[in-house]
Amino acid sequence: MTGTLMDPDTPFLAVDPATVQANIRRLRQHLDGLGVTLRTHVKTAKSVAVAALHDEGRPHPITVSTLAEAEAFADAGYRDIVYAVGIDPHKLPRVAALRARGVDLVALLDSVEQAAALPAGLPALIEVDCDGHRGGVQHDDPALLQIARTLVDGGAELRGVLLHAGESYYAIGDDALRAAAENERLTAVRAAEALRAAGHDVPVVSVGSTPTAHFAADLTGVTEVRAGNFVFFDLVMAGIGVCSLDDLALTVITTVIGHRPDKGWILTDGGWMATSRDRGTSRQRVDQGYGLVTNLDGHPYADLLMTDASQEHGVLSVRPGSSATLPDLPVGTRVRILPNHACATAAQHDHYQVTDPESPDHAIRAVWPRVRGW
Amino acid sequence: MTGTLMDPDTPFLAVDPATVQANIRRLRQHLDGLGVTLRTHVKTAKSVAVAALHDEGRPHPITVSTLAEAEAFADAGYRDIVYAVGIDPHKLPRVAALRARGVDLVALLDSVEQAAALPAGLPALIEVDCDGHRGGVQHDDPALLQIARTLVDGGAELRGVLLHAGESYYAIGDDALRAAAENERLTAVRAAEALRAAGHDVPVVSVGSTPTAHFAADLTGVTEVRAGNFVFFDLVMAGIGVCSLDDLALTVITTVIGHRPDKGWILTDGGWMATSRDRGTSRQRVDQGYGLVTNLDGHPYADLLMTDASQEHGVLSVRPGSSATLPDLPVGTRVRILPNHACATAAQHDHYQVTDPESPDHAIRAVWPRVRGW
Repeated sequence: MTGTLMDPDTPFLAVDPATVQANIRRLRQHLDGLGVTLRTHVKTAKSVAVAALHDEGRPHPITVSTLAEAEAFADAGYRDIVYAVGIDPHKLPRVAALRARGVDLVALLDSVEQAAALPAGLPALIEVDCDGHRGGVQHDDPALLQIARTLVDGGAELRGVLLHAGESYYAIGDDALRAAAENERLTAVRAAEALRAAGHDVPVVSVGSTPTAHFAADLTGVTEVRAGNFVFFDLVMAGIGVCSLDDLALTVITTVIGHRPDKGWILTDGGWMATSRDRGTSRQRVDQGYGLVTNLDGHPYADLLMTDASQEHGVLSVRPGSSATLPDLPVGTRVRILPNHACATAAQHDHYQVTDPESPDHAIRAVWPRVRGW
Repeated sequence: MTGTLMDPDTPFLAVDPATVQANIRRLRQHLDGLGVTLRTHVKTAKSVAVAALHDEGRPHPITVSTLAEAEAFADAGYRDIVYAVGIDPHKLPRVAALRARGVDLVALLDSVEQAAALPAGLPALIEVDCDGHRGGVQHDDPALLQIARTLVDGGAELRGVLLHAGESYYAIGDDALRAAAENERLTAVRAAEALRAAGHDVPVVSVGSTPTAHFAADLTGVTEVRAGNFVFFDLVMAGIGVCSLDDLALTVITTVIGHRPDKGWILTDGGWMATSRDRGTSRQRVDQGYGLVTNLDGHPYADLLMTDASQEHGVLSVRPGSSATLPDLPVGTRVRILPNHACATAAQHDHYQVTDPESPDHAIRAVWPRVRGW
């Protein structure tokens, strides 16, 4: 017991572990039914303690976005790690050091240049593009087979293929999301088949994004699914329809420090330093500003948004066009901000205050650190 | 000597102290000519070592945005500190602890509620609004005198008034910037005169923002100017015309990790985790994306921008409409990103790699930590 949500100076992050566990359980059950492994991307929470909510602390397969995450999770006993950012050859010594500690760290690449730089014995996944979102070769590009050949000829290990349907974050409606998931699966299977036809073993066929992971109806040919955001969810995911507002496990607690009745503003001590500059919902049907505002119990104030931010100031005001009235929140009142993008908001902080939803006085049960840097 | 800019794993922040010193010298000379004190806002660099570039390490008057900054600078011997975010009464014990250490920490407020909560002996500035940007009372609002009266009656000390012309960031053209500076000055002087007419001493008349600090032509009646961004500058400030690209002291170093010739993209390992999501130039005449791209020597590639970002991936491509060709940057090439907003970009990192511009091999002379959290 380390006080309540009224004790730490604001702004700070609060996380509800019961909601995280429910979010993990939901995705696990869905993927169990489809016969694939969940390889959670720890880039969202960057916390060994949050990851421990999967299996009561026992290590499980994970995905990382930085070697700093890999090193922190290796320290905590994790041994099955995919590093899902295209490998910069300069980082290979840290990759080798992790492997020397017994971590099965798998690298990612999408070019012959990178394949030629891999040391013998290092397992690698080839990134394949399915929607033009970011990196990756096309499943039918001869480069796919050249990369595999270069990799194997150099003594590295071809572990399989990896895809990420990043454009699914902009899909609208269940049909579009199911189609994005099926496109991701089908492209992965075709890439794997092309490699197998050329004589390669392809034990791993890895796909994933939080939207496609939840909307996949069939994952035949896929061996594992990566997703990260689902542990916390956020307003972007609620806007897509992957979760409801009740599933959001992460909030920023801020304090009212002033009022501008002439402008219809309530000012808080939570600016973009606390929420990040991420405004993901600005591209969605309903723009939620910098976030929805609730009281400490999690009940939303009618149409109250954080509509603007400077470094250490937030502006709360009523959603444009709404007839709701500004609530009476005196100086010193603490409110929660539900974030646009949990990954970006959490990155602004070093710790989570862990709340107990069963506790009527908002008891803080623990303080969990986050992994920082690269 | 701790290696060169080719040594640390990317992404990381690089700072050029000679450019910082030139930026400080320029603003100091301007303000010396106007007869006012510079009270640098350390929220941008959040670094005692960067602040030490003002006066060879000797403490000078500073502004802070968090008590964590105040505490770190107090540890380094700073004693003259304005905490320029409206006071949350919950934070008063930390304010008192700093004052008990001999720090002349001055609080900010803009309501009778806050004034009534101040302990006896605490000096405070009243925030006055000059452009509808954020908090503050109007200079001719009777509330100004009520706040002053409440404060003095409770035994606190009225130190003066504080204004911030935040809308100057959106001013276009030298005339508009000069007008913003004069409006900030004139409003400050009127507020101070109103307080004096009511019998109060007003020793401090504090104004400031990086644009108005540079464009002020007359500061009669003002005692000090606050500015923060000017130590590093950034693309938003260059877009306003407060600095040139050569004045930018802060860059993010990233590495090329892939190519999408079909899309006209070069992919790097520097995403929004390294640059922040801040896209301040999107509101300016020239949108610089997530930043301009230069080589390690600081020479820009023709019309090459960081045009998109995910958490750990940056996309470099040619400015829309430009006829420039994509440069040939093999995997492993390191480039610099000039940021939109130095305050937000620096906040994504824990350290600065301090470069020596006289060194042809980009030697790193030191690693300086940043203050984190609140």
